[in-house]
Amino acid sequence: MIVVLKPNPNRDQLESLIAWLQEKGIIIHTSIGEAHTILGLVGDTSQLDIDLIAALDIVEDVKRVQEPYKNANRKFHPADTVVKVGDTQIGGGSLTLMAGPCSVESEEQVVAIAKAVKASGATMLRGGAFKPRTSPYSFQGLGATGLEYLKVARQETGLPIVSELMDLSQLPLFKDVDVIQIGARNMQNFDLLKAVGHQDKPVMIKRGMSATYEEWLMSAEYVMAGGNENVILCERGIRTFESYTRNTLDLACIPVLRKLTHLPIIIDPSHATGKSWLVDPLAMGAVATGADGLLIEVHNDPAHALCDGPQSLKPEAFDKLARKLLKLHGFMQTVEE
Amino acid sequence: MIVVLKPNPNRDQLESLIAWLQEKGIIIHTSIGEAHTILGLVGDTSQLDIDLIAALDIVEDVKRVQEPYKNANRKFHPADTVVKVGDTQIGGGSLTLMAGPCSVESEEQVVAIAKAVKASGATMLRGGAFKPRTSPYSFQGLGATGLEYLKVARQETGLPIVSELMDLSQLPLFKDVDVIQIGARNMQNFDLLKAVGHQDKPVMIKRGMSATYEEWLMSAEYVMAGGNENVILCERGIRTFESYTRNTLDLACIPVLRKLTHLPIIIDPSHATGKSWLVDPLAMGAVATGADGLLIEVHNDPAHALCDGPQSLKPEAFDKLARKLLKLHGFMQTVEE
Amino acid sequence: MIVVLKPNPNRDQLESLIAWLQEKGIIIHTSIGEAHTILGLVGDTSQLDIDLIAALDIVEDVKRVQEPYKNANRKFHPADTVVKVGDTQIGGGSLTLMAGPCSVESEEQVVAIAKAVKASGATMLRGGAFKPRTSPYSFQGLGATGLEYLKVARQETGLPIVSELMDLSQLPLFKDVDVIQIGARNMQNFDLLKAVGHQDKPVMIKRGMSATYEEWLMSAEYVMAGGNENVILCERGIRTFESYTRNTLDLACIPVLRKLTHLPIIIDPSHATGKSWLVDPLAMGAVATGADGLLIEVHNDPAHALCDGPQSLKPEAFDKLARKLLKLHGFMQTVEE
Amino acid sequence: MIVVLKPNPNRDQLESLIAWLQEKGIIIHTSIGEAHTILGLVGDTSQLDIDLIAALDIVEDVKRVQEPYKNANRKFHPADTVVKVGDTQIGGGSLTLMAGPCSVESEEQVVAIAKAVKASGATMLRGGAFKPRTSPYSFQGLGATGLEYLKVARQETGLPIVSELMDLSQLPLFKDVDVIQIGARNMQNFDLLKAVGHQDKPVMIKRGMSATYEEWLMSAEYVMAGGNENVILCERGIRTFESYTRNTLDLACIPVLRKLTHLPIIIDPSHATGKSWLVDPLAMGAVATGADGLLIEVHNDPAHALCDGPQSLKPEAFDKLARKLLKLHGFMQTVEE
Repeated sequence: MIVVLKPNPNRDQLESLIAWLQEKGIIIHTSIGEAHTILGLVGDTSQLDIDLIAALDIVEDVKRVQEPYKNANRKFHPADTVVKVGDTQIGGGSLTLMAGPCSVESEEQVVAIAKAVKASGATMLRGGAFKPRTSPYSFQGLGATGLEYLKVARQETGLPIVSELMDLSQLPLFKDVDVIQIGARNMQNFDLLKAVGHQDKPVMIKRGMSATYEEWLMSAEYVMAGGNENVILCERGIRTFESYTRNTLDLACIPVLRKLTHLPIIIDPSHATGKSWLVDPLAMGAVATGADGLLIEVHNDPAHALCDGPQSLKPEAFDKLARKLLKLHGFMQTVEE
Repeated sequence: MIVVLKPNPNRDQLESLIAWLQEKGIIIHTSIGEAHTILGLVGDTSQLDIDLIAALDIVEDVKRVQEPYKNANRKFHPADTVVKVGDTQIGGGSLTLMAGPCSVESEEQVVAIAKAVKASGATMLRGGAFKPRTSPYSFQGLGATGLEYLKVARQETGLPIVSELMDLSQLPLFKDVDVIQIGARNMQNFDLLKAVGHQDKPVMIKRGMSATYEEWLMSAEYVMAGGNENVILCERGIRTFESYTRNTLDLACIPVLRKLTHLPIIIDPSHATGKSWLVDPLAMGAVATGADGLLIEVHNDPAHALCDGPQSLKPEAFDKLARKLLKLHGFMQTVEE
Repeated sequence: MIVVLKPNPNRDQLESLIAWLQEKGIIIHTSIGEAHTILGLVGDTSQLDIDLIAALDIVEDVKRVQEPYKNANRKFHPADTVVKVGDTQIGGGSLTLMAGPCSVESEEQVVAIAKAVKASGATMLRGGAFKPRTSPYSFQGLGATGLEYLKVARQETGLPIVSELMDLSQLPLFKDVDVIQIGARNMQNFDLLKAVGHQDKPVMIKRGMSATYEEWLMSAEYVMAGGNENVILCERGIRTFESYTRNTLDLACIPVLRKLTHLPIIIDPSHATGKSWLVDPLAMGAVATGADGLLIEVHNDPAHALCDGPQSLKPEAFDKLARKLLKLHGFMQTVEE
Repeated sequence: MIVVLKPNPNRDQLESLIAWLQEKGIIIHTSIGEAHTILGLVGDTSQLDIDLIAALDIVEDVKRVQEPYKNANRKFHPADTVVKVGDTQIGGGSLTLMAGPCSVESEEQVVAIAKAVKASGATMLRGGAFKPRTSPYSFQGLGATGLEYLKVARQETGLPIVSELMDLSQLPLFKDVDVIQIGARNMQNFDLLKAVGHQDKPVMIKRGMSATYEEWLMSAEYVMAGGNENVILCERGIRTFESYTRNTLDLACIPVLRKLTHLPIIIDPSHATGKSWLVDPLAMGAVATGADGLLIEVHNDPAHALCDGPQSLKPEAFDKLARKLLKLHGFMQTVEE
C-alpha cells in the first residue's frame, strides 16, 4: 500500500500514523520528494482499512498495490478451481453448456426443454423459479413449485440443475438444487452471500450491472470467506450508454479474470444482449476467447414465454449452436498448444 | 403502446396477436406505411408484458407511451406526498436535514453527534447499524446494538432515526426505527421491497449505482403496491467513467422526478462524491435545484471513523453548512414565487 | 416516425403541424387513445428534423421507426461492401490483418516490422505518423516524414499502408496512402469527414469513445454522402466505469453492424484493452464472432516504443497469433455452413 | 511517480531502468516489500512517459502522484484566472451569463434575441454559425454569414460574442469574434487546440462527452502551452446510461475544478439536459454550487428553431431566470463569508 502525504504534513499526526501502522506490524519505507512524501507500507496490508487512512488530514491519496481478495486470488491459489456437479464439472478445460428457460412455466415445458437441450449437448439445466422482475406487476415465477418441476426434469434427463436464489429465507428450498445462482441485482446482497458461503452447494455469482472486476471478486470472497470454495463467475453484460443491446457483453473479463482468479468463468450472451439473434455469434466469440462455459436461454415457444422471451433460442437453434460450440471448443484445444 | 411490425408480417400471426390483444380489452389502431405497419394500442396497456410482445417473430420493436408505474406516478396522484415522521415531515416545501455517522460506533459517539447536529438544525438522525461493505474483512456494523444506541440518541434529542435495513430477516429489529433505508445495492432486492411494502414505517429508497429513473420508480412501485405509500427517494450518485469522485451526483434527478412522481427527493452528497470537501458546494446546489432535503454524513472524528471516513464532515463544518442551507432554502422560497 | 401528442393538444397547433407534414408529402395515421393521441407518419421521414418536431408545445415524444442513415444502411444496399486496396480486399469473407507500430519511429523500425508482419500473414501495414496524444508534452509523431517511411516499407513488402489523418490540412500528404484512418477522437469532426468523403481513398472510421452504433453509422454516412463509398468501421473499445482495461471492447458490435450496415468491420483489441496480454484472446474472440479483420499493434521493442508500448505485441507473439487467427478463420468457414 | 515492480524483477533490466531515470535527473527511493518492490521517483516526472515505463517487462504498475498539467494547475498558479472580454470579465467572482440561439438563422433573429437577453442581464451573446450536426442531412449552420449577423448584433447591443470554431481552416473568420468556443466533439482535436493556442482570443473548451477532468485539463494545457492563457472551461453534461436526459450534468466539476485549476468554469444546462424545462432548476443549482457563469440557449421561436429547439428557452423565460440567477448570485456572496 502506498500513502501519498500532503505537502508539509503535521508532524504529530504523521508520527501518530507511523506508530499506529508499526503497531500492526507494518514496515514503512519513506520517500521524501520535492512536493510530496510517500510512505511505502509493507506487510499484511489487507487488514488495513484504506478509507480510514485516506480520511486523515495529512493524507492526499492512498493506493493499493495488492488485491483486497485472498481466497479468490490466483496468486495464493495458482491451480484452476474445478467445480464438480453430479457427473459433470465446471472449469478445468471442459466446456459447460447450461441451457434452459428463463422462467419455469410448467412441468411439461421444462421437461421437454431439458430433454431437447440434453440431446444437443447441454451439461446442465438452468431454469428460473424465483424471478427478479423490474415491475411488481410482471410474473414473479412459480417459486417452490418451479423448483419441483426442475427436479422432475433432472430425474428425467440426469442433468444437474441451476436456479436463482433471491432471498436467504428461500435457502431451505434450494437444498436439492445442484448450483445456486446469485443474480446480478443481488451481487452485493452481502447477507445472501454470507448465507450461501455457509452451505456447501456450488454458487454461481452473476456480475452486477455496474460492478468492477474487483467488486465481483470481493463478492466471491464473501462466499469463500464462509468456507464454500465452489464459486463460479458469470458475466452477463454491463450497463453502458449503448442502448441498442440491453447490456454490453464484456468478453475481456475472460482473460482478465483468468489472470486474477482461479475460479471458472461462464458467459451469458442471452441476458447480455437481450436479443436472440445475437446469442450465436457472441457464444462463439466467448468460447474462442477462452470461456469455461455458457449460459444460454432456450425456450420451446419464445413468443409465449412469460418473461424475457426476446432473448431465448428455440431448441432447434440451440441444437445447431451447441454443435458449433463443441466443435469450436475442440478446435481451440488443438490450436492453443 | 406502439408496436412496429416487420415488413410483410405473417398474416396468421398478426391475426392471432390482434385477437389476443382484443381479448384483453385493448383497442388497436393500425397505420400501414411503405416499409412498416404500426399498431397503436389503446387501453390499460400496463397489464401487457412488453417483452412478450417484442418476442413475436412479426414484431420489430415495441415502444411504451405510458409509464409502467402507477402508484408512484404524478399523473395519477398530482399532489406532493408529504411523509410525516414524529414532529417533522419530509416533502411539501420543508427542508429535511438528515445527519449522522455512516456507522454507529458507540453510544457516546452517536449521542454526541445527535446533540451536535440537532443544535445545528438537523431534523433527523441517520446512523448505520447494519453496514453493506464491499469486503468481508471490513467492519460490518454493530447490528442490533447499533440500533439500540440510535434509540438512546433519539431519546436524548427527540430526533427521529433513519437506518439501513439489509435483509428482511432483520425487519423485526426495525419496528422502533422511524424511517427504514433501503441501500443502493438493494434497490432491486425485490423480496426486501415487498417486505417493507407490507409494513407501515416510511421507506427511503436509495438509487442503485446504475439505475435509471424508471427502474428507481419501479422499486418505489414495489413498496407502494404492498400498501405503503410513505416512500422517499434518495439520490446518492451514479456510476460513470469519471473516477475522481466516487460517483457522479445527478442533480437533474430533482426536477425530473418532480415531474414524474409525487414522492419527496433527498440528496446524499456525501456518498455521491466520497470527499468531504465536496459536500458543502453540492449540498447548496441541491437545495437551489429544489431538493426536499439532504442526507449528510457527520462524524466527530472522521479520521478514526470505522467506515467511509473521507466523506464525513466534522460537527463544526456541518454546523456552518446547515446554517447556510437553511438560509438558502428561505431565499429560494422568496425567489420562486 | 411516431409522434405522441400531449393530452388535450391545442387544436390550432395540431392542425398547423398536420398541414406542415402533409406539405412535405408525409401521410399521417392518427390513433386517438384515452390518454394520448398518436400520429404515425409514413413516407420519407428522413427529411424531417426530429428535434424540431419534439420541440413543439403539443408534442410529448417522437420516436423514429426508420434509421436516419441511408447510404450506410443494409436495407437499401443488401450486399456486403468489399473494399479493394492494392492486391488485397477488406470484407466479403476474407480476414484482413492490419499490423504495425502505433507510432512510426524510424525507417529501419517500420521496414523491419513490415517485413516481419508480412511473413506472419498480415495483409496491411498500419503505422502512425500524426499522433493524437492527450498531453502536449508527449511525442506527437514524425508527421510527413513518418508517412515517407511507411511508403518505403510498402515498397519493400508490397503491403498497402493505413495511417491516421488528424486534420484536413494534412490531406494532401495522404494522396499516396492506401487507407485513411479517422481516429476515435475525430469520429465527429464533421469537417474532416466531409473532406475525406470528397476524395477517393478508402476511409476507416474508428468508433468514438462514447459513440452509439447510430452515431458511428452517421459518421460513415457523412463520408458516403460526399460520394466515397469505401468506408470501413473499426471498433476500439468504449468508455465504461471499468478501469482495469483502458476501454471495454464491444464485440456485440460485429453482429449488430452486420445487420444494420453492409460496411466491413475491423476490431482493434490493442487500443481497446491497452494491455498486450489481452490482445491474443480477444483477437480470437473477434474472429469467432465474425469480424472482417483485426488491427493489431506490433512493435519490435515495445518497452522503448515512443507511445502506447504496453499494448504492443512483439513480432514473435504476433507471428504465433496470426497463424492461430488464420486457422480459426478457416475453421469458422467450415462450421458456419 | 510510483513504480511497482513485478516479483523478482530481472536484475539487468532493473539496473538499466534505474540508470535511465538517473540520467534524467530523477531521484529514486526504493521500498522492498515481501511481494513487491516499489520505486518512488522524485524530481520533474512530468517529462517521463508513463506508458513507456508501464511497458517494461519488470513493471507491474505505474501511478502518478503529480498531475500531468502545469499551466492549468492551481498549484503553480494559485490566483483565479480572470478573462477580460470587452467591458465584461469571466471569473473572479462575477456571474457571466452567455445567452443566445444554438444556431444563427437570420440577422433579425439574432439581433432581436441579443436585445432581449441584454435587457434581461446577459453579459455575452452566444450564437452558432458553424454547427456540428450528427446527420449530414441536418442544417449545418450559416457559416461566415452567421458570424456577420453576430457582429451586427454586437454592434447593436454591445454584447461580446462567442461562437464555435469547428476546423482550423475557419480560424481567419474568427479574428473579430470575442471568444472562440471549442465544442465537445472537438475537445481532443489536438491540431485545433494548438491553433487556438497560437492566437490571442479567449478560448472556451467544452468538456467532451466522455472526458475525465484530467483529459479536459490536458486539452486546456494544449492551448496554454501555445501561449494563450485565456482559457475557460464549460461543462455540458457527460454521457451515462441514463437516457431520459440527453446527458448527465456533472455539477461536482465546479468544486473539483476549483481545486485543480485556476481557470473559470461555465455551466451549460441547455445542452446537458436537452429539455428546456430542466434549464431553470439546474442553472440555479449551478450558481449555488459556485459556477462562474452559465451558457443558456435562448430562441424567440423554439418550435421553429433550425436545430436543438427542445432545449431553448423563450426570451420571457430567460428573463425570469436571469433575474433569479442574479439574485441568487448576490445571495451567495452574502452567505459565503
